Amino acid sequence: MSSWLDKIKWNSDGLVPVVVQETGSLQVLMHAWMNRESLEKTAESRKAVYWSRSRQSLWTKGESSGHYQNVESIQLDCDFDTLLLTVKQEGGIACHTGRHHCFFMSLVDEQWQTTEDILKNPQDIYK
Amino acid sequence: MSSWLDKIKWNSDGLVPVVVQETGSLQVLMHAWMNRESLEKTAESRKAVYWSRSRQSLWTKGESSGHYQNVESIQLDCDFDTLLLTVKQEGGIACHTGRHHCFFMSLVDEQWQTTEDILKNPQDIYK
Repeated sequence: MSSWLDKIKWNSDGLVPVVVQETGSLQVLMHAWMNRESLEKTAESRKAVYWSRSRQSLWTKGESSGHYQNVESIQLDCDFDTLLLTVKQEGGIACHTGRHHCFFMSLVDEQWQTTEDILKNPQDIYK
Repeated sequence: MSSWLDKIKWNSDGLVPVVVQETGSLQVLMHAWMNRESLEKTAESRKAVYWSRSRQSLWTKGESSGHYQNVESIQLDCDFDTLLLTVKQEGGIACHTGRHHCFFMSLVDEQWQTTEDILKNPQDIYK
């Protein structure tokens, strides 16, 4: 039935990295991990479901923040071991720090400079 | 000296995942890995240098194909464990299959469909 899932080369932990890109802006919002079950749920529900390595559990993005990711496409790379999701980001906030996206530090003169503003206080997101 | 390198949370293999995005098109070209030395070389040379997990060695992207990646920015995410590079792709080909980018399979009706043409025969790239 799910032979498309069998094409994927899961790593020794049963995971693959996932690059998450916003439709429209084409901004790379975040990087996460999926196991087989989370990818299957994502494909079925069209909401992004990841595997939380820190909590060792499935994690529906937005379940506590309301910032769900509506999946528009799921793409696989040439090595069959990395996924690219394009998503519509609910609330316009993908990062747990309250920023639009997670890659908000830029290397300038051998220093990491913060280049993105906080749009919403995390304490008001995760109540 | 290199305290910006110490901010990064390398995994148990001393690596971090790297998302590679093309400037201009904003297309996600590929996903790779870096260790400390490869990132240091990348920052110095402004050419992307990765860590090849299959060969267990440093890998200057383009060294055999000529398809170097000229690095425009290096960004770090909120967890300090993933990098985003923006690059100019020499030759317009990032993928070893001869395609523009590596994410050329798209999930449609529970099948992976190839959505990108081969621009150059790999046998003519890697001579």
